[in-house]
Amino acid sequence: MTFLERYKTVRQRTEDICAPLETEDYVVQPVADVSPPKWHIGHTTWFFETFVLKSYVEGYEEFNSDYNYVFNSYYETVGARVIRTDRGNLSRPTVKDIFRYRKYVDNAMCELLSSNYNEDLNELLELGFNHEEQHQELLLTDIKYILGNNPLFPAYNSPVSEHHPINSTKEWVRFDEGIYEIGFNGQGFCFDNELGRHKVFIPEFSIASDMVSNRDYIEFIKAGGYQDFRHWHAEGFDWVKNSSVVAPMYWHFIDGEWMHYTFQGLQPVNTDAILNHISFYEASAYASWKGMRLPTEFEWEVASNKITWGSRWEWTESAYLPYPGFKKAPGAIGEYNGKFMVNQKVLRGSSEVTSPGHSRTSYRNFFHPHLRWQYTGIRLAQ
Amino acid sequence: MTFLERYKTVRQRTEDICAPLETEDYVVQPVADVSPPKWHIGHTTWFFETFVLKSYVEGYEEFNSDYNYVFNSYYETVGARVIRTDRGNLSRPTVKDIFRYRKYVDNAMCELLSSNYNEDLNELLELGFNHEEQHQELLLTDIKYILGNNPLFPAYNSPVSEHHPINSTKEWVRFDEGIYEIGFNGQGFCFDNELGRHKVFIPEFSIASDMVSNRDYIEFIKAGGYQDFRHWHAEGFDWVKNSSVVAPMYWHFIDGEWMHYTFQGLQPVNTDAILNHISFYEASAYASWKGMRLPTEFEWEVASNKITWGSRWEWTESAYLPYPGFKKAPGAIGEYNGKFMVNQKVLRGSSEVTSPGHSRTSYRNFFHPHLRWQYTGIRLAQ
Amino acid sequence: MTFLERYKTVRQRTEDICAPLETEDYVVQPVADVSPPKWHIGHTTWFFETFVLKSYVEGYEEFNSDYNYVFNSYYETVGARVIRTDRGNLSRPTVKDIFRYRKYVDNAMCELLSSNYNEDLNELLELGFNHEEQHQELLLTDIKYILGNNPLFPAYNSPVSEHHPINSTKEWVRFDEGIYEIGFNGQGFCFDNELGRHKVFIPEFSIASDMVSNRDYIEFIKAGGYQDFRHWHAEGFDWVKNSSVVAPMYWHFIDGEWMHYTFQGLQPVNTDAILNHISFYEASAYASWKGMRLPTEFEWEVASNKITWGSRWEWTESAYLPYPGFKKAPGAIGEYNGKFMVNQKVLRGSSEVTSPGHSRTSYRNFFHPHLRWQYTGIRLAQ
Amino acid sequence: MTFLERYKTVRQRTEDICAPLETEDYVVQPVADVSPPKWHIGHTTWFFETFVLKSYVEGYEEFNSDYNYVFNSYYETVGARVIRTDRGNLSRPTVKDIFRYRKYVDNAMCELLSSNYNEDLNELLELGFNHEEQHQELLLTDIKYILGNNPLFPAYNSPVSEHHPINSTKEWVRFDEGIYEIGFNGQGFCFDNELGRHKVFIPEFSIASDMVSNRDYIEFIKAGGYQDFRHWHAEGFDWVKNSSVVAPMYWHFIDGEWMHYTFQGLQPVNTDAILNHISFYEASAYASWKGMRLPTEFEWEVASNKITWGSRWEWTESAYLPYPGFKKAPGAIGEYNGKFMVNQKVLRGSSEVTSPGHSRTSYRNFFHPHLRWQYTGIRLAQ
Repeated sequence: MTFLERYKTVRQRTEDICAPLETEDYVVQPVADVSPPKWHIGHTTWFFETFVLKSYVEGYEEFNSDYNYVFNSYYETVGARVIRTDRGNLSRPTVKDIFRYRKYVDNAMCELLSSNYNEDLNELLELGFNHEEQHQELLLTDIKYILGNNPLFPAYNSPVSEHHPINSTKEWVRFDEGIYEIGFNGQGFCFDNELGRHKVFIPEFSIASDMVSNRDYIEFIKAGGYQDFRHWHAEGFDWVKNSSVVAPMYWHFIDGEWMHYTFQGLQPVNTDAILNHISFYEASAYASWKGMRLPTEFEWEVASNKITWGSRWEWTESAYLPYPGFKKAPGAIGEYNGKFMVNQKVLRGSSEVTSPGHSRTSYRNFFHPHLRWQYTGIRLAQ
Repeated sequence: MTFLERYKTVRQRTEDICAPLETEDYVVQPVADVSPPKWHIGHTTWFFETFVLKSYVEGYEEFNSDYNYVFNSYYETVGARVIRTDRGNLSRPTVKDIFRYRKYVDNAMCELLSSNYNEDLNELLELGFNHEEQHQELLLTDIKYILGNNPLFPAYNSPVSEHHPINSTKEWVRFDEGIYEIGFNGQGFCFDNELGRHKVFIPEFSIASDMVSNRDYIEFIKAGGYQDFRHWHAEGFDWVKNSSVVAPMYWHFIDGEWMHYTFQGLQPVNTDAILNHISFYEASAYASWKGMRLPTEFEWEVASNKITWGSRWEWTESAYLPYPGFKKAPGAIGEYNGKFMVNQKVLRGSSEVTSPGHSRTSYRNFFHPHLRWQYTGIRLAQ
Repeated sequence: MTFLERYKTVRQRTEDICAPLETEDYVVQPVADVSPPKWHIGHTTWFFETFVLKSYVEGYEEFNSDYNYVFNSYYETVGARVIRTDRGNLSRPTVKDIFRYRKYVDNAMCELLSSNYNEDLNELLELGFNHEEQHQELLLTDIKYILGNNPLFPAYNSPVSEHHPINSTKEWVRFDEGIYEIGFNGQGFCFDNELGRHKVFIPEFSIASDMVSNRDYIEFIKAGGYQDFRHWHAEGFDWVKNSSVVAPMYWHFIDGEWMHYTFQGLQPVNTDAILNHISFYEASAYASWKGMRLPTEFEWEVASNKITWGSRWEWTESAYLPYPGFKKAPGAIGEYNGKFMVNQKVLRGSSEVTSPGHSRTSYRNFFHPHLRWQYTGIRLAQ
Repeated sequence: MTFLERYKTVRQRTEDICAPLETEDYVVQPVADVSPPKWHIGHTTWFFETFVLKSYVEGYEEFNSDYNYVFNSYYETVGARVIRTDRGNLSRPTVKDIFRYRKYVDNAMCELLSSNYNEDLNELLELGFNHEEQHQELLLTDIKYILGNNPLFPAYNSPVSEHHPINSTKEWVRFDEGIYEIGFNGQGFCFDNELGRHKVFIPEFSIASDMVSNRDYIEFIKAGGYQDFRHWHAEGFDWVKNSSVVAPMYWHFIDGEWMHYTFQGLQPVNTDAILNHISFYEASAYASWKGMRLPTEFEWEVASNKITWGSRWEWTESAYLPYPGFKKAPGAIGEYNGKFMVNQKVLRGSSEVTSPGHSRTSYRNFFHPHLRWQYTGIRLAQ
């Protein structure tokens, strides 16, 4: 595909994800971590306008200079930003205004990409595509949060299937101790946090061929796992108590049965399916209860070709830290990853709401250990 | 007008107020005191459905039983309610759904009011009309807050004019000490909090013929009024410091000039106009700085025919308390006023966003002393 | 008694109250409203040093200029103050230092009062004595809070008896409607908030001869009073739910019996005694449950000679507001009362921890409606 | 030394540290992370009573069963605990009571250790000694916080010297890439978190021979380092803004000069001395501003014999995570370290307030990245 075709494809997919939304769904921000869908639509557009059009198209006229203020996310280099928790209080610009903005920028981008443009730009375009794909996943998880916390539990005609049955007889895949190479090592795009391929020494380990199922996890609940502090980090157990956590996110115990919110509305939990929507704290407590542990991100990367990828992001024991030799890119683009490298945990793999072709074995996703609105599950190691 | 005609008129006016809204504007709740416009639309409808149709129309079928949960405000008798601060997180029911609900209830109400219905109902209808008029005023103040706190400062085609010039040579109207009668004393509707007409003894007093202007108040600002604790209640001065208050709500000092957000967008403050959007704390501090005081609600009521009503609600020194012999109505309707009779201040008069015919000399409005998104001003007494 | 003798007496009583304290008890501040005893000791001393010695004794040398910062309470005129919630974090000055300071100021005061001093000072001395008496009551309530919230429930050799049996057959004392005079009207000292004796018109009313007993209140608890929102102010019911209130302060339900913390340690609740340690919200809800109400402060003052004073402060329905013609004194002394006249409720009478001779029929005590660490009870009216 | 002699020595040192304290200093808890000194005194005693005496001495009589509740820290296995933030509200047990408790336990311990006791106990005794040494360091840092945040800035006759001049011409010590062994590898005691000696592969690196000085850091301040978000983690920059951080803890800019609180009271900052009292966020931002980075804990351990230990704990880039094969001990002792292995950063080395003989090259200290009341500094790597 040409860059022009890829631009059109990635931008279209974002709009396809949002097509079933009501206008009202675009506006709300029920918690700080969940952004209003209209903000995602505007922010991904602002990315191309700010970093491509304003830098590479002579005479480009900004659509609306106020939008810089509204759709900036965390790029402090570029100017003041709307405080993140305030995004859900902004009724203007309207959804129509934002799609007009999107159309305007798309036209300018298509014109640019149809021209004989400077090929130095290609690297930035790759980043823009991957950035938009990340927001596609966030759009799906944020939409699920917005609808799944509405007392009417409305269904959503999402492009993804959420039910993934699982091999119930897990096997253990064993690896010898030794020096392994970790980090991106291929053609094409990767994020800066995967770079600096380097050697690590890994002791002998075993990793489960398959992920933990809902059935497995219900045993943990029934055994009083949420009440037994011995399996929890101190901060995890405080979180359990302060937030009155008794089950994965979206689960409700109704008339003696576990139900959960899905894009089909409220549904019985299928015990054969892969567990979903748990925090690192829960993943770690479950592993401790089983007398095992979570894999490190290095173990996972080494094993990634010999295990069944599970359609859920997999919490690892590893903290999100720079690889040796990590360098921030200069300028605003350099704010992309490095500034988040504290207090977060690495997740590996991908989920059913990850954009096609977006993940790879060296991909490092990261979230704070208490968060669970992403599609997250557990793989055991020992 | 018949009750049917009045029903149609009052319901239409609510929709007229909202007509210029974008769908997105209906959804947001930037602070706890401001409700999303769609909630007002649904809640006023829920009132007629719950208290009239479900009680008085045999075989009436509820539009959607979930709405009871969503649109209940504070009527704890009637069932669980959506936590007030969560209203802005609900994208569903959509605005269209709510207008469908409104239409459905309106049809049933019109059918009922066209029939030979039980005239006992009339008292409840009066309450419903007055309740809806109260929400019309809240709709306008909430819309102003939603748009006035948006960084784009969008104009709004509101039905009201906000500029009210004022007589700059105030006179003092003097009243003798004596026993006066206070409370509702007429035909027609009043709220329960106005009832129990009773005698009060009032010492001699003087009250200003006109309200305080922007010009007057700017003098207070220039004189350092916000920095001088001697004029403030202790809690008022804490509020000033903690909220960094330096001027009335919606005022911005831009390029050496006071601007304020109005329904025409950001405009220069007109110094001849009546002051607007101040808290009780500010009103009281201003009066103290002038060596005067605010009137009590009794003084105001006695003087109400001899002073110029100012198109702003007027803060009084009086706390919101029951009149002697105050009785709550039985059932949910009884929750209307009595439960708020602590920690609030009485405001008298009316404002330009008060619905026509809604106020009267005995009318008791009330808000917490730090709030200022209502149309509020100052009249001095001594 | 001469002023010198009175000075010595009032200062000695403060020290007598504190005599059984351990050094550690002087230091802590478990909640913002409760001050460390050492702060009371220093603050009452600071009052005489700042307003008397530094103004009236030529050549007086301040004990330690830093103490001005540490022991100022709310007198913003006089300089920066230690944030109120930080008082419990200050280990220095030590208790010994503060008693040294107290001795130093006492010596200077006694020298002054033994001399031929300017009699204009007498009014200020009266205020200082009454100010110290107020802090004597706060010392006792704060000490009770500090020990009563300690898991060891230590006893305290307090000078007061807390058990007050009550007449179980209450009578109703009836008063005609009419104009009554309210406010201080005598010889001697009163606070500025009692001044401006003025006429009020009071409708006919009846007031109970005796206060509510523990037995009465336990009936309310058993009847589910804390769960029935119909009897509560909206803010009161929120307080009940958010603070999980199920009984008066210091009550614990242990092995099927109500116990409460007293200066003798944890003791069974004596059902014949006067109810103690309740908030205005609870008082009002109890009255509503009985189908009655609380008296206004004017009714209470009119009835004060015909009812049994109950050794508890009595919550009234009245908000704490200025009397007609209320004037603040000039300077720092003027901050004494006026700045608190918002969001608080008037209490009348006195309690067993009130200093002897400190109260009178026109005395206006005041606290926020949710507070209950003072000795507070209920008298009904109708 | 015999175990008996070691017991007496370590217990005595705790008391020596506290000897200059006033009784009041033992009581306060100005922030949640700082415990009242009397709690440290009681908690270290409780440790020996609970884990040694109650388990190994037949017929041992507990001093006071309530103390179990008061002096438990985080050992959830052993029973309910006082919420950590409430420690500073407890005036009882008094300091005298606690020293009586200490004496009682010391007597029983000395009796036990003088007897022919079971040598299985020795491992637990070692843990108890090291546990007490950790609290000795916390005592000193907590005392400094309590006095350093008092507006009187009192001096403290501490056993440690805080001024450490530094070699201003730092050199770079270079290490080849390769496999290194990490973790405890010796005789004697270590904590569970150091165990599981294991191989790691480390790329080539250089590490500074000496730590960063106050002079170095003042350059960063002058260059606007605290205002330039590019050098900060996103959470670090939020911390800087929300807490208005402009310099290391205890620094005050007075009359054009940097002063800081020390155990000698407020003193000028000595520019030749090693920097102290900074957070991980500040350490990382400083390194970024220099175009360098912090070492990992593995690099530090490898280099530990070739660099000058600096008398400050050194923040590393490493997150606090379990070593391969980490196992919690069974029972309450197992809560010691593992439960804290999330969201914290490893510090290596030791400080002047570390107990003699307490640290070693494999020692892993850990704190949250925003904390700075410990004695913490910076060593650069690249």
